[in-house]
Amino acid sequence: MAEDVMVAGVGMHPFGRYLDSSLKDLVRVAGLRALLDAGIGPKDVQMVYSSNAMAGMLQGQEMVRGQTVLREIGIEGVPVVNVENACAGGSTAFAQAVMAIRSGAADVVLAIGFEKMFVADRSRTLDALESAADLDVVAGLGIQFTAVYGLRLRLRLADGSITRRDLAEVSVKSHANGARNPYAQHQVTVTAEQVLESRCIADPLTLLMCSSICDGAAAVVLARGGVLPRSERPAVRVLASASGSGFTLDPAGGPSGADLCARRAYEQAGIGPGDVDVAEVHDAMAPAELLYAEALGFCPPGEGGRFFRSGATALDGSLPINPSGGLASRGHPVGATGLAQLAELTWQLRGEAGDRQVRRPRIALAQNSGGWLEGESAAVNVHLLERMRPWT
Amino acid sequence: MAEDVMVAGVGMHPFGRYLDSSLKDLVRVAGLRALLDAGIGPKDVQMVYSSNAMAGMLQGQEMVRGQTVLREIGIEGVPVVNVENACAGGSTAFAQAVMAIRSGAADVVLAIGFEKMFVADRSRTLDALESAADLDVVAGLGIQFTAVYGLRLRLRLADGSITRRDLAEVSVKSHANGARNPYAQHQVTVTAEQVLESRCIADPLTLLMCSSICDGAAAVVLARGGVLPRSERPAVRVLASASGSGFTLDPAGGPSGADLCARRAYEQAGIGPGDVDVAEVHDAMAPAELLYAEALGFCPPGEGGRFFRSGATALDGSLPINPSGGLASRGHPVGATGLAQLAELTWQLRGEAGDRQVRRPRIALAQNSGGWLEGESAAVNVHLLERMRPWT
Repeated sequence: MAEDVMVAGVGMHPFGRYLDSSLKDLVRVAGLRALLDAGIGPKDVQMVYSSNAMAGMLQGQEMVRGQTVLREIGIEGVPVVNVENACAGGSTAFAQAVMAIRSGAADVVLAIGFEKMFVADRSRTLDALESAADLDVVAGLGIQFTAVYGLRLRLRLADGSITRRDLAEVSVKSHANGARNPYAQHQVTVTAEQVLESRCIADPLTLLMCSSICDGAAAVVLARGGVLPRSERPAVRVLASASGSGFTLDPAGGPSGADLCARRAYEQAGIGPGDVDVAEVHDAMAPAELLYAEALGFCPPGEGGRFFRSGATALDGSLPINPSGGLASRGHPVGATGLAQLAELTWQLRGEAGDRQVRRPRIALAQNSGGWLEGESAAVNVHLLERMRPWT
Repeated sequence: MAEDVMVAGVGMHPFGRYLDSSLKDLVRVAGLRALLDAGIGPKDVQMVYSSNAMAGMLQGQEMVRGQTVLREIGIEGVPVVNVENACAGGSTAFAQAVMAIRSGAADVVLAIGFEKMFVADRSRTLDALESAADLDVVAGLGIQFTAVYGLRLRLRLADGSITRRDLAEVSVKSHANGARNPYAQHQVTVTAEQVLESRCIADPLTLLMCSSICDGAAAVVLARGGVLPRSERPAVRVLASASGSGFTLDPAGGPSGADLCARRAYEQAGIGPGDVDVAEVHDAMAPAELLYAEALGFCPPGEGGRFFRSGATALDGSLPINPSGGLASRGHPVGATGLAQLAELTWQLRGEAGDRQVRRPRIALAQNSGGWLEGESAAVNVHLLERMRPWT
């Protein structure tokens, strides 16, 4: 990767339930905070990638979603590209922004994601969510993400490498992190007993393991290295950006989409999983973290449960995972999630994460997956970020 | 523009009304034809940009539209990015594909656009179309593109620079071209009298001046220069790719989005409007061609009517416009239109356009606009293509 692409600024609208807020309200907060954080104004943005997944079916704004919300914060005239990749839309916007800078098309690019899933009729939200897979295949089956995750975890419970206690404890850990995150939807701690006793959603998954319907927005300003004035804060650089999309899984086994993208990202960066100091992974169901730790190479295949039980992934562990609380606790407003991960990691690398700050991280990894196709994610993005200044 | 990006292959599914075809059926034809034309197979595609505007509201496939249709033609695993920019979505996919190659992320990229607007309930199609503007502003007003075009043209009728006869004759010319295009929705010639006497849609626009609801798909394979084996056909190169988005128009006048993007494109290519030999412009209403001829610099401001009357824009003129028939005659399946323009120009540059072939073109321009925001298009893309081999 020849050219340095820097994370110049990040911002979020807290995730939660905002019945009286519009998409524009959410975008205004996240967008202006990111610009302020980058020390620039709306007129400095040369290009925008906008990520939203559901405003067509939920708000009726089927087209030009980005343009309509961005004009409100004074961004107009510049190229705006609306991207959608289900739950991986936010990181897709980020990946495209990196690409736009590398291509020479722009020096300062805004990636912004927003979603408003709370609408009067919840069945519409569920219908839209169902279409994160091929409707010709799944329509009416009633099989959604939760069930797919549940089926995968049952295999692992059967072989004994993960226990029901692990499933509960990983949710306890996520909630403990989320309780320290002012941007999180669920800022409460829970006990393993509460998790196990909460309503069963798709065995072995219970309510307190699952991400919920959520409103929110997140934004990241990316800039070509050297273009924006130096800030007092430690600079954060994009080390790698790797993407893939769903494929038919080899019945004989083989690497998953997250595996493949992680390998590509490590190769781009010239580092290995052992170099990662903190990670945000796509735990739409908290226990997914156990599987992703394996796919991303943080531990050997089959060792996700053991790795977690060792305490490595806790805030004070050797490789903290989801310090933000993850999707299950921070919340999962579909088009915004991937950018919220990158905002969290930027704060962590800069040492600005407050009560949930992990210890002196230098390399951070974000993994964001979306949709599914024959059992594999329809879109996957893995990004690696680096803190440029040594910790003192 | 440092690196050569070549148009390696193009393909279309004929535009029209296909009640028994699915999105996958349309994509299969356009996609496989483009691959065949490029002399490659599905596994050679390294990345995809997929453009669709309305499948959320019309087919219920709110997410991962590209992934679901592409798996059918054997494209999976590689990054797929779903883009949307209203009627400019197709050229946005093309612009992103160019960028991906220039950034070094991929060598061979497919841009594909598809739309199925004929559904059982036409009011849903109209609702989705209305959302090509900010719903907070336009919802329920009943003011759509047609009315906006109508208002603009009335100003020009009032100042006498364009006549009602011009409006009719430009539609006659478009239909004459479309009648020679096997991919066009309306392959019929019309007379000026028929155009003027057809139903009034938004004065001065009549039915035969307007593009209609349409199904279709179009695809373009782009490749880094030198990556694919040389073909017998003349190579076609991307000379410029310029994009912009809606902005609040200066009440005192000033350049439009199409003006600005055209200027950027000419600057990138180091040429001027006088170098363009053939153009496809976004005539969602046939008379828009008269205004775009001015915006793109083909004639001085205010001279669009006179330029057209001189015969310059006819198939055998000095600067043929819309040899395909344009949107009003070829049809306008929203997400596919921009790529259909680029497919047409590729055929024209190669000398493969059959009965509608224009004379020995070397430079071609495609202008594709989408949506609106305070009276200006929400997205605009202007591309310049060049035939690399001299005509013999």
